[in-house]
Amino acid sequence: MYNTSKVVFSPRVRKSPFFLSTMKYGAKAFTVYNHMYLPISFEGTIPDYNNLLKGVQLWDVGVERQIQIKGPDAEALSQFLTPRNIKKCLIGQAMYAPLLDFKGGFLNDPVMLKLAEDCYWFSIADGDSLLWVQAIAAGYKFDVEVNEPDVSPLQVQGPNSAELMANVFGDWIHDLGFYRFKEFNHEGIPMVIARMGYSRELCYEIFLQDHSKGDELWECLWQAGQELNISAGGPNIILRLEGGILSYLADLDRSNNPYEVGLDWMIDLNQEDDFIGKEALREINIKGPAKKLMGAEIDGDPINDSNEDHLPVLINGKVVGSMNAMVYSPRLDKNLSYVFLDTEYASVGQEIIISSPDKDLKAKLVNLPWLDRAKK
Amino acid sequence: MYNTSKVVFSPRVRKSPFFLSTMKYGAKAFTVYNHMYLPISFEGTIPDYNNLLKGVQLWDVGVERQIQIKGPDAEALSQFLTPRNIKKCLIGQAMYAPLLDFKGGFLNDPVMLKLAEDCYWFSIADGDSLLWVQAIAAGYKFDVEVNEPDVSPLQVQGPNSAELMANVFGDWIHDLGFYRFKEFNHEGIPMVIARMGYSRELCYEIFLQDHSKGDELWECLWQAGQELNISAGGPNIILRLEGGILSYLADLDRSNNPYEVGLDWMIDLNQEDDFIGKEALREINIKGPAKKLMGAEIDGDPINDSNEDHLPVLINGKVVGSMNAMVYSPRLDKNLSYVFLDTEYASVGQEIIISSPDKDLKAKLVNLPWLDRAKK
Repeated sequence: MYNTSKVVFSPRVRKSPFFLSTMKYGAKAFTVYNHMYLPISFEGTIPDYNNLLKGVQLWDVGVERQIQIKGPDAEALSQFLTPRNIKKCLIGQAMYAPLLDFKGGFLNDPVMLKLAEDCYWFSIADGDSLLWVQAIAAGYKFDVEVNEPDVSPLQVQGPNSAELMANVFGDWIHDLGFYRFKEFNHEGIPMVIARMGYSRELCYEIFLQDHSKGDELWECLWQAGQELNISAGGPNIILRLEGGILSYLADLDRSNNPYEVGLDWMIDLNQEDDFIGKEALREINIKGPAKKLMGAEIDGDPINDSNEDHLPVLINGKVVGSMNAMVYSPRLDKNLSYVFLDTEYASVGQEIIISSPDKDLKAKLVNLPWLDRAKK
Repeated sequence: MYNTSKVVFSPRVRKSPFFLSTMKYGAKAFTVYNHMYLPISFEGTIPDYNNLLKGVQLWDVGVERQIQIKGPDAEALSQFLTPRNIKKCLIGQAMYAPLLDFKGGFLNDPVMLKLAEDCYWFSIADGDSLLWVQAIAAGYKFDVEVNEPDVSPLQVQGPNSAELMANVFGDWIHDLGFYRFKEFNHEGIPMVIARMGYSRELCYEIFLQDHSKGDELWECLWQAGQELNISAGGPNIILRLEGGILSYLADLDRSNNPYEVGLDWMIDLNQEDDFIGKEALREINIKGPAKKLMGAEIDGDPINDSNEDHLPVLINGKVVGSMNAMVYSPRLDKNLSYVFLDTEYASVGQEIIISSPDKDLKAKLVNLPWLDRAKK
């Protein structure tokens, strides 16, 4: 469990369409993300994690707002916004497609969904990327409409998720490929159903397209999950670290580029089209990145808290990086952490000291991720 | 006091340079604003308000991030971003200068500070306007550097604020005009000191320019305030409503334009320079706004809570608007609220019903504000 204080609820911050359901089923702590409340803990970090692994869990991730780009230049603008070669993306396919600035730094790390030849969604992490995309579209004169549609994602996570989804929406769920999606209407509830999510477990993401139907959709899944060990949860730091999954602003921000966080494979510098940051990435590609994100395993007893701040990382008393996230993984029986290190020190086996407020923590560098994706 | 739950502290959300001081002096509840924790309650809404009015109060508003525009085209870009005629602004002067989108809707409602002929700050409300400004600068090819500098505001609020400020920084404080500022260095702490703030009380805003000195600055003011009834507080909803002050995203958002919220006086459609939204504002100016923000006084006993959501406003059973904010003002002994109404109903004296979850509230429309600015 994170350290907590009180948060105020006020009309300045939006509630997701699933907010009442999350309160009903025990949401205990929130953060604010994209000007919305995000339920982050129900029974606690470890119980929530255990509940997910023994059944199926609903996550209100309505905070993942969509940027919809629609019109004749939708593909051209989408390509201009990301280093990924999106021209390879099929209709009904999704791709992790970071948004970079002109220096190659991360503005956001959304998943892109291609809904039609002239319609794309970017499902964003925390940040008003909508402003960036709209201003780029205006300034560079792309012929598109850019807005935030009425779309609120709900994730269905865990080993029983496929069975639950198939029971509710039909057996076609079993044929849905990884990072593929389908538009679907369930008893008057319009949605897009995708096979993906914010963990390496078996999972699905339902993009609800009518905010008035949030609690109805939640309840429908909840009832169908009674025999499948259904529970309520939220994005979980143990699952995230086990799977080597990034959290924008926690693990990386604008000061980082894709080469630093192992996302080089996503950059297509050879494509003919120009994209924002291409020139900067070319230079970084030649020089090599100045720092690197790695895993680190922390010695000793299970740490029973996660870090509240980024912490300094030292070798021989010299600060050589920072520690961004740490947590104990029960199934690996290890203390996991993410560290950013000056490239010269970023080697597997390197011993480091993480300087926490309580005491110095000894750790050793490893490659990411600890766990691969669960197969059906 | 607002309704509360828990908020998590994690490295994903930034802490202000005054965070430790606010915890030390009793911060009890937070919200998240511009990816930072904003302390919003110490002893509670009414005690915090009373403490301020009987002395001087420190507010950590480090969440007000600055967008710095610097370079040969700094004035041209700043003008392009706002309908206010900023060419009238002097060096050392600040102006409320909203950022609008191409439809005339509010992207943000910052105060602009002119630091030099080629350097402007926009001190922003909640939203990543930096992305908007950087993309506009790139797309429209303005010759400027746009970034978020190391600047964190701290407000000094209340009747004893001038005396405290003069005791610490010198008697020149008494000569500082309203919405004027001066760069200043106090014992190695670099800052900009302005006479303005987020209330109609006597107040000052210190723009700290070195985040490592936050607690030192706080402590220095705190010690000097021992004879002046110093306390810790935060932006206060009672002061805000009394003074007719707006809160972006609570009271107004992108769906609103300046004509709807009484900011017509800020728009200069006759200036030669083009600005974003000019065409749209011209049309709204001719047709008139579709809705209007007004005050409303709610009948009955003091309401002992503020609203968690926007609430529907009805006349004769028909929804004609929404209620955005409400609170009881002890010194006015009135229940104050802000309502948005279809223009045809927006007349002083009009009776309305606010449909709250508990019960219907009877109210009557009045002009804003209830209180004018306190003079020295």
